[in-house]
Amino acid sequence: MNDAIVVLNAGSSSLKFSLFAGSDDLPFVAGGQVSGLYTAASRFVGKDAAGKQVAEKRWDADAKLDHHGAIAHIVEWLKTTHGHEHRLSAVGHRVVHGGMDYAAPVRVDSEVVARLEKLVPLAPLHQPHNLAPIRALLKRAPELPQVACFDTAMHRSNPPLAQMFALPKALSDEGVRRYGFHGLSYEYIASVLPKFDPHAASGRTVVLHLGNGASMCALQAGRSIASTMGFTAVDGLPMGTRCGALDPGVILYLMDERGMDARAIEKLIYSQSGLLGVSGVSSDMRELLESDQPQAKVAVDLFVYRIGRELGSLAAALGGLDAIVFTAGIGEHAPAVRERICSQAAWLGVELDPDANASRAPRISTPSSRVSAWVIPTNEELMIARHTRDLLARG
Amino acid sequence: MNDAIVVLNAGSSSLKFSLFAGSDDLPFVAGGQVSGLYTAASRFVGKDAAGKQVAEKRWDADAKLDHHGAIAHIVEWLKTTHGHEHRLSAVGHRVVHGGMDYAAPVRVDSEVVARLEKLVPLAPLHQPHNLAPIRALLKRAPELPQVACFDTAMHRSNPPLAQMFALPKALSDEGVRRYGFHGLSYEYIASVLPKFDPHAASGRTVVLHLGNGASMCALQAGRSIASTMGFTAVDGLPMGTRCGALDPGVILYLMDERGMDARAIEKLIYSQSGLLGVSGVSSDMRELLESDQPQAKVAVDLFVYRIGRELGSLAAALGGLDAIVFTAGIGEHAPAVRERICSQAAWLGVELDPDANASRAPRISTPSSRVSAWVIPTNEELMIARHTRDLLARG
Repeated sequence: MNDAIVVLNAGSSSLKFSLFAGSDDLPFVAGGQVSGLYTAASRFVGKDAAGKQVAEKRWDADAKLDHHGAIAHIVEWLKTTHGHEHRLSAVGHRVVHGGMDYAAPVRVDSEVVARLEKLVPLAPLHQPHNLAPIRALLKRAPELPQVACFDTAMHRSNPPLAQMFALPKALSDEGVRRYGFHGLSYEYIASVLPKFDPHAASGRTVVLHLGNGASMCALQAGRSIASTMGFTAVDGLPMGTRCGALDPGVILYLMDERGMDARAIEKLIYSQSGLLGVSGVSSDMRELLESDQPQAKVAVDLFVYRIGRELGSLAAALGGLDAIVFTAGIGEHAPAVRERICSQAAWLGVELDPDANASRAPRISTPSSRVSAWVIPTNEELMIARHTRDLLARG
Repeated sequence: MNDAIVVLNAGSSSLKFSLFAGSDDLPFVAGGQVSGLYTAASRFVGKDAAGKQVAEKRWDADAKLDHHGAIAHIVEWLKTTHGHEHRLSAVGHRVVHGGMDYAAPVRVDSEVVARLEKLVPLAPLHQPHNLAPIRALLKRAPELPQVACFDTAMHRSNPPLAQMFALPKALSDEGVRRYGFHGLSYEYIASVLPKFDPHAASGRTVVLHLGNGASMCALQAGRSIASTMGFTAVDGLPMGTRCGALDPGVILYLMDERGMDARAIEKLIYSQSGLLGVSGVSSDMRELLESDQPQAKVAVDLFVYRIGRELGSLAAALGGLDAIVFTAGIGEHAPAVRERICSQAAWLGVELDPDANASRAPRISTPSSRVSAWVIPTNEELMIARHTRDLLARG
C-alpha cells in the first residue's frame, strides 16, 4: 500500500479531483470531476493516469447533488478503483483567498475554517465553494489531514506598495488591498523555471497565466513582487468574460445613469465583459481566432494590447526584464497570440523564433534574444499536492 | 485699441480668468479669480501682468454669488481697468468633456451647449460648472464669440484600443470609454517641446502632469497615443484626494459590506483618498515632504511607485522612450519627487543630473542620458487663448 494525496478544486458548480501517489515525484494516478452541481444534470467523470476517461455517472434532476454528495461519490470511486494499492493520507484544497494572514498553505481544522469563512466577503463568488468540501470532509473523516493552499499566498511577498490602493488607511487595514491570484500557478512555474533557464529563475521574469481567467506576475528571483489582479480576480487583464482593469467612475456611472445595483454590475463585469463582451461572439480564444467577425478581431487585439501595457508596467516593477513565460490554456495553446505578444514586446528585447513558437518548444525566443521567452505548462494540482505532502512531513 | 481674449476656467466654487492681448504671442495682461462661489465667503482677486494682486473684493453671506454674478464682476473689472486699451474679441473656456464628438475646440452656440449638456453624466462634478459661464455670456453678450476647449480632445488621437474598456460593445457605443484628461496641458507641452528637444518632439515622450490632479500621457511625435486617466478623472495615478486606478471589485465590496451608495463612494474615491487618504495628513505634496509622519512617507512612496509602473505601461504603448517631461505643480516644483521618479526610471535609460534638477534647469538629465528628462511649466490658459484666436481667425 502506498500513501496518496487527493487534491480538490471546488467551483460553484463543479468539483475537480486528482489523486497523486505519495512517492517522491508525486505521479498523477487518477482524476476527474463532478460537474453540474445543484443543477438537474450533475455528471461524474473519472480518468486514469493517462487522462483517459474510464468512468462516468449521471444523476437525474431529483438528486440535487451538492458538494457533500460529490465528495462522497469521489471518495467511493477512488476507494473502489485505487483502494487496493493506495491509502489516502491527506487532502489538499485549492482555496482562492487566504487574506492578509496566510502567506503559505495551512493545515485545516474547524478554527482555520472559521477564519477562512471570514474572508467570504473578499471573494463571495469563490470562497464559499472552496470551503464546502473542506467542511464536508471535516465531518465525514475528522482524522484525515486537510491542507488549504491559497491563490493569494504567493503574492504576500509583494512589497507593501504593490499591495496598496490609494484609499484611506482604515480601508487598507480592514483588508481592502491588492491580493493577486493564480499564485499556485506562478509558484509552480517558479519551481520548475530553474530547469529551463537558471538565469531567468534567478533574475527578472514575467509569467503570463493566460487562461479563461488571466493574469500576469513579476518574479524577482522566483518571488512574486507584483501582479495584475487586485482585490478581486476581476482586475487587470481582460479575460474570457471579465473586464479587467476598469475606471471606478464607470461603476458610479452605471449606478447613476443605468440604475444598476451591485448584483447587476457584478454580472456585467464578471460574466458579460472581456472577450465575450467585446466580441459579442465568444469567450473562447480558439473561437475568436477562427471567427471572421470584425468584433472578434477587436477582442483579440484588445487582449494583446492590454497584455503589452501590463508587461511594461511589470517590467518597471522589476527594473528590467530577463524572461517571459507563457502558461495556462491560451498561453500554452495559442501560438498566434504568443507571436503577437512577443512582437509587441520587441522594445523590451524579446525576439521570437517563429518555428519554435509553432512547435511549442519550451524556448520560443531566438538564441540571441536579450529576453528569453518560454512556454511552460502549469500544474496547479501538482503544486497543491507538493504543498500538502511537505506541510504534513514538517508535522 | 487692441483685441484681447479672456480665458475662463470654471470650477464648482471658483471662476479663474486670464486676459491675453490679441497680438502674435498672446501676452498675458491680467487675471485673477472669484472663489467661494455659492458660499458665505465669496472673494474676488485681480492681478496684473506680473501676477501681482492689484484688486480684491469680498461679498457677505447674503450675496449668494453664483457664476453669473462672478462673470458680471469680472467683466466690469476688466472693462474698468483694461477697457481703455483692450477690446474683448472672444472668450475661451476650459470644458472638461468633449465626449466622442469633439476632437478639437469648437465655437459655442446654444446648439453646441445643448450637446455639451448631454455629456454631464460623463463628468457630473465638472461639466455643469464649465457650462455655467458659457450660458451666462450667451445671455449677456450673444454676439461675443465663445470657444470651448476640451480636456479630452487631445486624446481622441489615441488608437481605438487605448480608448476601450473590455466591456460589452453597447456600453462603448454609449460612450463608456477611456477619454483621458489634462489634454490642454499636454497640447501646450507638445507645442513647445520642439524648442527644447526636437528629437523628443518627433519621437516618443511621456509627459507627467503632476498637480493636485495628476496624469501621464504618451506622445508619439506630439500626438497623444495613451494616457493614464480613463472614463473619468479619478482613474490612473493617485492624486491629492483621488484614488486613481482601483479594482472595480472594491466598489462592489463597499456597496455590499459597507452599504455605501453612489454618493458616499464618490466622496470616498474623489475627496478622501489619494495622498490625503493614505497619509491621513494632507493632500499637499509640500506638506507631505516636510512631514515626519510615517504615513506621509508612505503616501509619497506610493505616488512615486505608481508613476513608475505607469511609465513602464506608457513606454510599452510607445514601443520605447526618448524623453520624459515634468509639468504642473508637483512636476515643476518638487525636485525630490522628480529625483525619485528618474532614479526609478533608470532601467528605461533615464540618468538624472542632480544639479540641474535642483536648479530646475529645463533639462535635468545628464548629457549622456539615453532618455532626456525635462521640466517645462505648463500653460493651459495660453493654450486656450491660442485655440480661441486660431479658431476665430479660420472663420
